[in-house]
Amino acid sequence: MGDDASSPAAGGVPEAQPLVHRHVSLLSDYGHADESVGVVHSVIKALAPGVDVIDITHGIAPYDVRGAALALARSVQYMCPGVVVAMVDPGAGSGRRAVAVEVGGGSSFLLGPDNGILAPAVSMVGGATAAVELDNSEHHLEAPGPAFSGRDVFAPVAASLCRGVPLAELGSSIDPVSLLPGTLPLSRTEPDGIHTEVLWVDRFGNVQLNLDPEELDGPGTRFELGFAGQRLLAERVSSFGALSTGAVGLMVDSHGLVSLVADRASASEQTGLVEGDEVVISAAGESPPAPDGDGPPAIAVELGPRPGATGDEGQVGR
Amino acid sequence: MGDDASSPAAGGVPEAQPLVHRHVSLLSDYGHADESVGVVHSVIKALAPGVDVIDITHGIAPYDVRGAALALARSVQYMCPGVVVAMVDPGAGSGRRAVAVEVGGGSSFLLGPDNGILAPAVSMVGGATAAVELDNSEHHLEAPGPAFSGRDVFAPVAASLCRGVPLAELGSSIDPVSLLPGTLPLSRTEPDGIHTEVLWVDRFGNVQLNLDPEELDGPGTRFELGFAGQRLLAERVSSFGALSTGAVGLMVDSHGLVSLVADRASASEQTGLVEGDEVVISAAGESPPAPDGDGPPAIAVELGPRPGATGDEGQVGR
Amino acid sequence: MGDDASSPAAGGVPEAQPLVHRHVSLLSDYGHADESVGVVHSVIKALAPGVDVIDITHGIAPYDVRGAALALARSVQYMCPGVVVAMVDPGAGSGRRAVAVEVGGGSSFLLGPDNGILAPAVSMVGGATAAVELDNSEHHLEAPGPAFSGRDVFAPVAASLCRGVPLAELGSSIDPVSLLPGTLPLSRTEPDGIHTEVLWVDRFGNVQLNLDPEELDGPGTRFELGFAGQRLLAERVSSFGALSTGAVGLMVDSHGLVSLVADRASASEQTGLVEGDEVVISAAGESPPAPDGDGPPAIAVELGPRPGATGDEGQVGR
Repeated sequence: MGDDASSPAAGGVPEAQPLVHRHVSLLSDYGHADESVGVVHSVIKALAPGVDVIDITHGIAPYDVRGAALALARSVQYMCPGVVVAMVDPGAGSGRRAVAVEVGGGSSFLLGPDNGILAPAVSMVGGATAAVELDNSEHHLEAPGPAFSGRDVFAPVAASLCRGVPLAELGSSIDPVSLLPGTLPLSRTEPDGIHTEVLWVDRFGNVQLNLDPEELDGPGTRFELGFAGQRLLAERVSSFGALSTGAVGLMVDSHGLVSLVADRASASEQTGLVEGDEVVISAAGESPPAPDGDGPPAIAVELGPRPGATGDEGQVGR
Repeated sequence: MGDDASSPAAGGVPEAQPLVHRHVSLLSDYGHADESVGVVHSVIKALAPGVDVIDITHGIAPYDVRGAALALARSVQYMCPGVVVAMVDPGAGSGRRAVAVEVGGGSSFLLGPDNGILAPAVSMVGGATAAVELDNSEHHLEAPGPAFSGRDVFAPVAASLCRGVPLAELGSSIDPVSLLPGTLPLSRTEPDGIHTEVLWVDRFGNVQLNLDPEELDGPGTRFELGFAGQRLLAERVSSFGALSTGAVGLMVDSHGLVSLVADRASASEQTGLVEGDEVVISAAGESPPAPDGDGPPAIAVELGPRPGATGDEGQVGR
Repeated sequence: MGDDASSPAAGGVPEAQPLVHRHVSLLSDYGHADESVGVVHSVIKALAPGVDVIDITHGIAPYDVRGAALALARSVQYMCPGVVVAMVDPGAGSGRRAVAVEVGGGSSFLLGPDNGILAPAVSMVGGATAAVELDNSEHHLEAPGPAFSGRDVFAPVAASLCRGVPLAELGSSIDPVSLLPGTLPLSRTEPDGIHTEVLWVDRFGNVQLNLDPEELDGPGTRFELGFAGQRLLAERVSSFGALSTGAVGLMVDSHGLVSLVADRASASEQTGLVEGDEVVISAAGESPPAPDGDGPPAIAVELGPRPGATGDEGQVGR
């Protein structure tokens, strides 16, 4: 809305140009406290009227590239085809590349800094079919200072893609294999159990682990969890309601991974587990059976610190 | 944006199907910290391109069905016709029904779990004209684990309704009277005054009571408020500016209910009142007149604890 | 969505009226905890279907007119032409005017209370070409209590402007020079240095000052910052990466102003500076050179309290 804005044509808004892509989906660590998100929306819509901008989330912790990559991977299969922009960029201004990655042979594009943020999502939708470094400044806004890359690079480039500008015009072609890979942790099996890591604690306190459900398949449904010098028995359940009050269970979550959950309560608060913590999971067959074997099996009895546990065995991760 | 996404037709985005409803309005306890809200938007827009999604709020406290029902009731008369989805669901996965309620003979639909969240809003717009349980999974997404109902049930069903799918196709018809009623508290008159309850404390600290303004009509404009073993005199005012600094008054709020307010200050902080607290309101004629009757009447003098008050008389509610 | 809502015409949504403006951009202190923002969106879209509503931000601190004016000024040049509404209104209900200000000869309109919130933005886009007080209640909603101005005045008026209602129909013409001016602080040069003020601390802890970069131009690149009885040496840098860990530097930010920054850390936390604080900046030539002049210059050595500093010299502002 510069001072040189001309009046709209008499009789209505200027006719929007035909769009090749209708949707731009955004993910960032900008938060909602200031105008950053609004300015990115405005730039896209000013340059490509008619585009529909979807906020995936702007609640990523500042500079948390890993958290952003995970959120993007969890949501990418549900996104509208078009342009996806991921803006979490601790290295802004330090020379890292801004890139656009084509997937599906041009059906969609993922934009972001080349810091691994896009890698898991790109992989989940079939891999890159092309990529460019966004070094053609003709498609950027001129900044009054150092570029605010969301506003000055990614927003105008997203608008250009929606308007049908070919990828090759937006910058120098690069080999997709040169893109920084993601670094999501994998679980691993060791003699004492499966070593997993807390990927994410959601708003309700569910504790998502990097564990596929089939890794828990076997004769038993009771598991021992070891973390931070503590041991906890947890039952594998198929719904929150199967847990008694105060109990923590293992459940397949709506993303198909295993989460530690509690019924209408925060499993994170009950266990103290936070993102990045290690949890070792083993079958609980070695535990002594409950004294009165007649009743239903004890579910998620908290055992307290393991005898002999020291602080040195404590919390792993952050 | 699956890996099977086909390229858009040459020359533009695929033509959106004609829509029978243009607007979907969302309310939830998802917050903005993660991608949940964005994924719901994406699913709706991927399945019904051209639909306009409005976020009523996603700031409802986790599992607060009552708070959600109140927010929905406060806003429903302002909403765009179309589809409204309320997603606060402490009983997710425990077998409670997901329902769609038709109002206005098909002009709009309210979707949500059958836990009372919809009841006050449905009543405010004239009552249900039909209802179904959303048990036709052909209109749901397949989940990799237990359903995330916002993403897997409500979003695709909202898209179907916008695209003109008849209600009856979405599930089994149910009698609207079988829907769980809401449980909003009503004020009641007792010998010591009108017993009211704090419905809501807004961002500015205004304390909304379940009290119609006419219940305060009478000869006087001064009232005594009793709560948590305290007494407070409050003047009935018609604007914030009529209150002196530090005073708390009774004012009709912009929803037509009575709120305790302060001028550019938080009445909640000044009184300690929070959602669910009980406040007993009586005419203040029994109070001794101010010693110097010439000046303007004392407004909202805090009297401190009532002599003889015990902890047992204390805070009611939550 | 009142109970009198009629069914949509058979075959699709009612045809949207042609729009003269397509975009409404909103800025407020409403937050996202309740339904206020959603209701404003709903009213605009119910009255002017097809309008695209952009949230600049709703994270302004309650009643912070200055913060809102700054956020609006930072973003206005990036906004879509159309209608901009700024809703931060500590004087609501006390008789202050609600106004609409035309800029660019009718290309855009800025709406808000007449409390200085619009002034810097209006000035940045070339000044007002006309203005009205929004006193024609035919274009307002009827409120069940005192008006909630965002919902009852600004939203319906914004919709009217989008639908092409002439400004003169919305209220009494007023002289733009009668509008309350903004009161943004200016830096000033005094014998001990340039007295600046912290305008804003962003989400990443960068501390923006009311200082143009050229005011730092001169032979040296090292400056002494004085604030709250403390002294700090800071290097002028051109990127975050040029700062060593723990150092604070002066950098031109993406708005063209000077900010105190740290590399992947919060300069606000490191210095304790918050919005409204005064910072006195002087060339650091008077400082003794570092003992070993061979190495790179020490950057941003914190010197601790200045000898003789008293609490009286302390923090200015909030």
